[in-house]
Amino acid sequence: MSEPGPQVMARFVGAENVERGRDYLEQLDPELHRYIVEFVYGEVYAGETLDTKTRALCTVAMLATLGQQLQLGVYVQAARRQGASEQEIREVLRQVAVYAGFPSAWNALATMNAALERFKDSSQESQLPAESQPVAGAVGG
Amino acid sequence: MSEPGPQVMARFVGAENVERGRDYLEQLDPELHRYIVEFVYGEVYAGETLDTKTRALCTVAMLATLGQQLQLGVYVQAARRQGASEQEIREVLRQVAVYAGFPSAWNALATMNAALERFKDSSQESQLPAESQPVAGAVGG
Amino acid sequence: MSEPGPQVMARFVGAENVERGRDYLEQLDPELHRYIVEFVYGEVYAGETLDTKTRALCTVAMLATLGQQLQLGVYVQAARRQGASEQEIREVLRQVAVYAGFPSAWNALATMNAALERFKDSSQESQLPAESQPVAGAVGG
Amino acid sequence: MSEPGPQVMARFVGAENVERGRDYLEQLDPELHRYIVEFVYGEVYAGETLDTKTRALCTVAMLATLGQQLQLGVYVQAARRQGASEQEIREVLRQVAVYAGFPSAWNALATMNAALERFKDSSQESQLPAESQPVAGAVGG
Amino acid sequence: MSEPGPQVMARFVGAENVERGRDYLEQLDPELHRYIVEFVYGEVYAGETLDTKTRALCTVAMLATLGQQLQLGVYVQAARRQGASEQEIREVLRQVAVYAGFPSAWNALATMNAALERFKDSSQESQLPAESQPVAGAVGG
Amino acid sequence: MSEPGPQVMARFVGAENVERGRDYLEQLDPELHRYIVEFVYGEVYAGETLDTKTRALCTVAMLATLGQQLQLGVYVQAARRQGASEQEIREVLRQVAVYAGFPSAWNALATMNAALERFKDSSQESQLPAESQPVAGAVGG
Repeated sequence: MSEPGPQVMARFVGAENVERGRDYLEQLDPELHRYIVEFVYGEVYAGETLDTKTRALCTVAMLATLGQQLQLGVYVQAARRQGASEQEIREVLRQVAVYAGFPSAWNALATMNAALERFKDSSQESQLPAESQPVAGAVGG
Repeated sequence: MSEPGPQVMARFVGAENVERGRDYLEQLDPELHRYIVEFVYGEVYAGETLDTKTRALCTVAMLATLGQQLQLGVYVQAARRQGASEQEIREVLRQVAVYAGFPSAWNALATMNAALERFKDSSQESQLPAESQPVAGAVGG
Repeated sequence: MSEPGPQVMARFVGAENVERGRDYLEQLDPELHRYIVEFVYGEVYAGETLDTKTRALCTVAMLATLGQQLQLGVYVQAARRQGASEQEIREVLRQVAVYAGFPSAWNALATMNAALERFKDSSQESQLPAESQPVAGAVGG
Repeated sequence: MSEPGPQVMARFVGAENVERGRDYLEQLDPELHRYIVEFVYGEVYAGETLDTKTRALCTVAMLATLGQQLQLGVYVQAARRQGASEQEIREVLRQVAVYAGFPSAWNALATMNAALERFKDSSQESQLPAESQPVAGAVGG
Repeated sequence: MSEPGPQVMARFVGAENVERGRDYLEQLDPELHRYIVEFVYGEVYAGETLDTKTRALCTVAMLATLGQQLQLGVYVQAARRQGASEQEIREVLRQVAVYAGFPSAWNALATMNAALERFKDSSQESQLPAESQPVAGAVGG
Repeated sequence: MSEPGPQVMARFVGAENVERGRDYLEQLDPELHRYIVEFVYGEVYAGETLDTKTRALCTVAMLATLGQQLQLGVYVQAARRQGASEQEIREVLRQVAVYAGFPSAWNALATMNAALERFKDSSQESQLPAESQPVAGAVGG
């Protein structure tokens, strides 16, 4: 709990996206925005017991199970940022077929493909090493 | 896919439980039993891309999200067998509160506590050190 | 829509159970009771376009998908009453694994086994042949 | 289990769609594709205990319950291919209102209408009798 | 139960929308249409024990929990028509985060914003006081 | 947000239950306990925009929709504490049949009956008038 919410959030969703997302979230609902920064990232995600890559993959598993495609796209990219390979994310989503059924896995894989496409584009565009590990070099590899 | 289903299954749920579970599953439904051994463990869980600890924790996350308490108990123990500490499992279940709501996290933590109690007992029985140490190496892993 | 609700209800859940269930439902909620008799059975189930066996099996599929074990037990027996064999119900529940995941199928098969056990007992009591024969003709159908 | 997966799949989703779907599924995920052909159709759907029309209608019921519109559209057409009339499918979807709520039934009926529209068009276009029974002539009748 | 279904329906969704919705619902499914008018509004919503504003807010809570965005948009407007302020609806949707998770609350707030935008526009256009209370003057306030 | 979490929590679940629940929640998970007190009650439930009776009824609606019987029992009592009559809670649960299906409404009404039984008993114990009168004023509210 040593690290403040905005910093933890940036680690997962990307510093540039925290910036970009601020206006959207404020217009969506200022209170929900505050809950996300202070509670979700400032508390739940802030612990250091669990490594960030496992955290992100568990979130991918949950969002695919719930059929929450919008947030799933964000967390597929977060998982990549934390060092998960495309193949590891695929394995998690195949496991979704066992527990939440084939349609959920199918939809999640389609969302993953689209999210990784955008992730690769943005990585190349900015010529920047991705968030806190050598992920960018490995994208698409 | 090199390893056969029964072997992969034993790695996750414990060799002694595969034995014990056989009669139950045959009486439940012989076809479902075959699907679980051949498809779930022989295919989906058999890949080596994703480490077994992460696989087990993602399954814990999904089962908690779905409110499947019976199978969750089994996979909390499987996660311990793959080397996840009690604290790591707890972190995953706290994350469940964010995505599937507080009641799902609450129920899952109650299931986890009960499953770990049984896990410790069965470990002690067999003269094995239990709880928060290198369990995977000890318990059939 | 020619047939009144109580008659349609009796066809599915068994005349003796309509009788027995009346007090329970009245104590649960008189309005919900009325909705079930007048709307669910008097309207939705009353049409003759779809044969009653298919109706019952589709309900089994939905209840298993939703994890509603209590009502599933009732409809497994209803499916038998409409002439579905144990094997046909099993096939439907295996299909549940594909769409709603293995835990849902597993739980549903356990519920089915218990419900069929009770069904056989009550059939034998009344001196009727049970299991995998033309039950519908025998049991109040 | 005598019939191979691709053949069973063709029977349900239409031979021309298996062809068309191959590239899509390979690009979505080659493993999921293999699971669908070998496990879902090669195993679960391959049994002959349950007639194919009932199978398809139970799948329609489950997909509507789960709100999986994409796959529901495919299986509304599959149900027609197996000889279910538009009115029979409608009856199943009205039953969805009872178990999964009115919004699920409402959304499913909208998906059904769109899927049947496409089904009629494709049947007329190709001037071909539909998959394994004289359904085309009956469409809209 | 003294008031007929169409009247109750008009009170919640707006008289002009009952008119407009009739053709849509008839084309969707005439039976579902009849169930909605006679059962949902003629029975369930017709009681006077619960005030209409609380009814509408509970429906908002349920639809957000279920992720039924289409119907949620309609009931956000219904809640406004029954006198709920934008801030009260927001409070309900923030509570959704606790029970159904943050993604459900997030999606629901986005749906609410869009629905209120349309609600304001239609109120201004028609220069009419909104349905059965002085809501219009307060919109956006 | 002026009122601290434990005070808001006591208002909803009853001061005596906060006391009793503390040990249970600490043993369940100390972090989840803290989240519930600080975030759920200290933030989400703390706003004064929405009256507490409507808040409690919306929570009842959501928990019934999710099938979370344990927490539903607690919130049926909370709704009574905030002045909702048994009949008002019943109306909300009948509405659940429309959106989440009849089995969800059925299960919820059974949970409600049991919870109100316990509520009456505990009220009588403490010499308080129970059931369908101005309870809120009496029970700690």
